Amino acid sequence: MKSVYRQTLIMDGSRRENDAEHSWHLALMALTLSEYAASDKVDINRVIEMALLHDLVEVYAGDTFCYDAKGYLDKDERERLAADKLFALLPKEQAAEFRGLWEEFDKMETPDSLYASAIDRFQPFLCNSKTGGHTWVLHKIKAEQVYKRMEPVRTTIPALWSFIEDVIAEYKAKGVL
Amino acid sequence: MKSVYRQTLIMDGSRRENDAEHSWHLALMALTLSEYAASDKVDINRVIEMALLHDLVEVYAGDTFCYDAKGYLDKDERERLAADKLFALLPKEQAAEFRGLWEEFDKMETPDSLYASAIDRFQPFLCNSKTGGHTWVLHKIKAEQVYKRMEPVRTTIPALWSFIEDVIAEYKAKGVL
Repeated sequence: MKSVYRQTLIMDGSRRENDAEHSWHLALMALTLSEYAASDKVDINRVIEMALLHDLVEVYAGDTFCYDAKGYLDKDERERLAADKLFALLPKEQAAEFRGLWEEFDKMETPDSLYASAIDRFQPFLCNSKTGGHTWVLHKIKAEQVYKRMEPVRTTIPALWSFIEDVIAEYKAKGVL
Repeated sequence: MKSVYRQTLIMDGSRRENDAEHSWHLALMALTLSEYAASDKVDINRVIEMALLHDLVEVYAGDTFCYDAKGYLDKDERERLAADKLFALLPKEQAAEFRGLWEEFDKMETPDSLYASAIDRFQPFLCNSKTGGHTWVLHKIKAEQVYKRMEPVRTTIPALWSFIEDVIAEYKAKGVL
């Protein structure tokens, strides 16, 4: 996890962020922002566990950039095989528990996974906002793509939405998005 | 947190570990090993929160190496001032909650903080065991110092103790400790 690098730069722009750092950041953000979850059904403890676990399969499957349409074609299959290998390292009951949390996170259907996924989308957005829109520049991303990607944040953590709109407007004005 | 580097190397020995990675590793280890906590009073959710927060003050106070006797002389004072500055960024109630968890962790008196601290001692031990005893070599650490440092693990997560003894014996035999 400490050697799987993401596209996102850390806030000071000095280097790419790895999965371990990203997961810690998510877990702490989820905790810190929990009062802003729109749903009162969010169990923050389960969300934090999801944040800690959600990228573990990337140890075998690698990181797939969120706007990489080609990478997404076989992402599910690659990650399913990685999960088979990874969770087999654990005792049966614990493997089922951890895998269940990971699958729940990925499906984005329950209040816990919707909140966790919204944080997972907001965190790299925040990094981009502080690093000149690094991954947006790199991959020529358009404002519409960012809006679509951020949609779960609008419904799940609405208090963040005006900030998101402001950042997108700022980077549109700069000609980045 | 992603730019505060510890003495410990990551498992592949390629570079030093930072506080964000270390905190993620602790939180996940605490969760994964929770069934081995000797006390049945451990609330794993509080432990995970402590793991996520326990090094935040180092953003301002820097990391103090665990065998650095001189650094430890003013560690408390440096970290108290850092905490004043750091937690003032949060709303009052949340600041009190987070600071409370950090102070509890540091005092090592409650079942939650004893378990969290034991994990915090075991994690760099594990990294050392996989990297030729990196920080032990670097600072000419003796077996007695490691035994003393690991003592809370013996009482709090006794299932790990024979592994710890084996590693210390191995590194004694190698002439490292």
